[in-house]
Amino acid sequence: MPDLRRTAAEPGSSAVPDGSPDASPLYDVAVVGAGVAGLSVAWRTARRGLSVVVVDPSPGSGATHASAGMLAPVSEVTYTEQPLLRLGLASLAMWPAFRADLEGESGEDLDYRTDGTLDVAYGTDDMAYLDDLASFEESLGLRVERLTGRGCRALEPMLSPSVRGGLLARDDAWVNPRRVVSALLAALAKAGGTVITERAGGLAFDGDRVVGVRLASGQVIGATSVVVAAGPWSPSLVPGLPIRPIKGQILRLRGPEGFLTRCVRGLVHGAPAYLVPRGDGEITLGATMEEMGFDGRVTAGGVYELLRDARELVPGVTELELSETTVGFRPGTPDNLPLIGPLRGTGPRGPAEPAAPRPPRPPDLLAATGHHRAGVLLAPITADAIAAFLTGEPVPQVVESCDPGRFSR
Amino acid sequence: MPDLRRTAAEPGSSAVPDGSPDASPLYDVAVVGAGVAGLSVAWRTARRGLSVVVVDPSPGSGATHASAGMLAPVSEVTYTEQPLLRLGLASLAMWPAFRADLEGESGEDLDYRTDGTLDVAYGTDDMAYLDDLASFEESLGLRVERLTGRGCRALEPMLSPSVRGGLLARDDAWVNPRRVVSALLAALAKAGGTVITERAGGLAFDGDRVVGVRLASGQVIGATSVVVAAGPWSPSLVPGLPIRPIKGQILRLRGPEGFLTRCVRGLVHGAPAYLVPRGDGEITLGATMEEMGFDGRVTAGGVYELLRDARELVPGVTELELSETTVGFRPGTPDNLPLIGPLRGTGPRGPAEPAAPRPPRPPDLLAATGHHRAGVLLAPITADAIAAFLTGEPVPQVVESCDPGRFSR
Repeated sequence: MPDLRRTAAEPGSSAVPDGSPDASPLYDVAVVGAGVAGLSVAWRTARRGLSVVVVDPSPGSGATHASAGMLAPVSEVTYTEQPLLRLGLASLAMWPAFRADLEGESGEDLDYRTDGTLDVAYGTDDMAYLDDLASFEESLGLRVERLTGRGCRALEPMLSPSVRGGLLARDDAWVNPRRVVSALLAALAKAGGTVITERAGGLAFDGDRVVGVRLASGQVIGATSVVVAAGPWSPSLVPGLPIRPIKGQILRLRGPEGFLTRCVRGLVHGAPAYLVPRGDGEITLGATMEEMGFDGRVTAGGVYELLRDARELVPGVTELELSETTVGFRPGTPDNLPLIGPLRGTGPRGPAEPAAPRPPRPPDLLAATGHHRAGVLLAPITADAIAAFLTGEPVPQVVESCDPGRFSR
Repeated sequence: MPDLRRTAAEPGSSAVPDGSPDASPLYDVAVVGAGVAGLSVAWRTARRGLSVVVVDPSPGSGATHASAGMLAPVSEVTYTEQPLLRLGLASLAMWPAFRADLEGESGEDLDYRTDGTLDVAYGTDDMAYLDDLASFEESLGLRVERLTGRGCRALEPMLSPSVRGGLLARDDAWVNPRRVVSALLAALAKAGGTVITERAGGLAFDGDRVVGVRLASGQVIGATSVVVAAGPWSPSLVPGLPIRPIKGQILRLRGPEGFLTRCVRGLVHGAPAYLVPRGDGEITLGATMEEMGFDGRVTAGGVYELLRDARELVPGVTELELSETTVGFRPGTPDNLPLIGPLRGTGPRGPAEPAAPRPPRPPDLLAATGHHRAGVLLAPITADAIAAFLTGEPVPQVVESCDPGRFSR
């Protein structure tokens, strides 16, 4: 259960005259965190006419910077995570309009591609797993296509001759997350939003009500509502939020255009590996999943395993340039679903208040965080859900599974 | 055979008034190339009282920057390269005094270490190879020690349990080449030498005599003698020099101090891999040998193979940070021996003149290049040999094998 008391008790926080006249200008919304989630929230909210400020020392430099940008709810499906699948499918359906808007307003090309994901298998066991997955996906009404090894290589000639077969998820798409950040920053500015490139030191309170964001410098940015979109760093603002960093190491390769034309995935040595090609010849190769806290080191073992697995899928990668090694921290939650919505009963003074179905005034504190591996995919639905919570519009039902209070029930 | 005619015929080269009064100041020696060879030559020459200038757009950024800095003639011995072994042993014997001088004059610590090289073997075939190598080394009077697998692990506990045995070459040493460059620049400055950080466009001639270096900007730096120490780029100054770039990819890892205490080498998958520890916990892991011209790309395959081989030698490297990936170009020669000495009969006008045993005036053009994998090891003997050629001192006999004219005989 989130508990703000520790924040309120931090040294210095009470020294700031929270809510006092110098905590101006007063924004409708302050978003803490300028990853793809926070920026999308800020943009969609600003578009609705609210005054919006985003606080982040280095916009777009967190998990979004590392991300491969796969919009792949189908090929990422797991047997136990159907709420996540429904959420992902709903957000994937929003991506074409989100993209058209964002490209239109920013004038930037997101390298949005819709050629699908090809999931490949090697041995007999792998094939059995893919067959089973295909049946499960079909039972959910998802569109997948079973391919022979030859069928896979017809689509992607660089695939290993050892590939025995595969599944093509034609509805999966992908995008360049760094371009998304750049476009969101441009679109947000156009919509009148403000970005403050400083670190947020905590929340500002008036009694038990959140009234803004306290910068690390001590200055308070007043806001009617604060949206915590700080990914794995969110618990530093809202202690007790059930979010932990899941370290990912990810590589960028550079090859000739057309080396691959689709996202290629495979289960190699028990770990899912993927290669995501861009229009400019870059290939994102990911990713490790490590419970290592905020360990920012690129390790010999992480890079080794990624290259080893990629070689098994696509032997020709050995000839490509290794142009970048990156570490990112996914904001993980206990059930792999994000936290989207008001944080209720989190005031510093006392016990939880009963949740109101529609608050009479905008919630003072909301979460748009914990997106784990799916921040880019879930950006449209996250943004529109938060905007709905803020303006009193109806919130999509599928977002109910993301209620931040679900872990304390 | 070196042939300067093409250089002399280059567009613009005759437009420069070579040897005219504006080609001043006139140095005794101009060295082209500020790698470990060029800087060592410059420093030792300046120490003898000659006026010296070094021309390099980016000192220490070539092969020296990539180099692991092994001073390892014993463990690097091959059956067919005894002249190289003799040269290496002679230079290794000079290193303690060279180091003491250099550290004393520069005030810098070279991280010079003398704990020896441990060459390890896995299977039966590898052990047989090492046994044979040990016998060969002993027949040459080299000091090596045969160790069991347990003996190897007693010296280096991080070694793989699969190591079957090894050879310890106690006389091998190593040094941090980047510190050597930094120290040489400081010592050279103290000895009155000058460094011009511009690219050399070619040589300057008066008739068939070299009279200086023409910078890419067109300016001529006049010099009585020019020393070509431009490594793999040397043929751009002296067309026809039998030197080619041999690409090496090399990694830097960062671990706890004492993770390894010696240079560890092994033949893995048919390729020699080595790990060179520094006092600060850095470990240099090398290196690929690629005939790829000046292909400056770090490749997925190169990094993969280095990490794979290192893991087999020392499994725990997977936990270390991969802090750097570097590409360098070794200056390779047909016989793997460097070119050290006067370049004779290379004038633009015509055929080779007969070589004089001791020229009446200093040679106008010399080579100190083509050191392949051994530039750091051979720096002391190269520097003193070139200084001897320039001043008329006796030249060490072992350097005769490096006569630049040997390929045209």
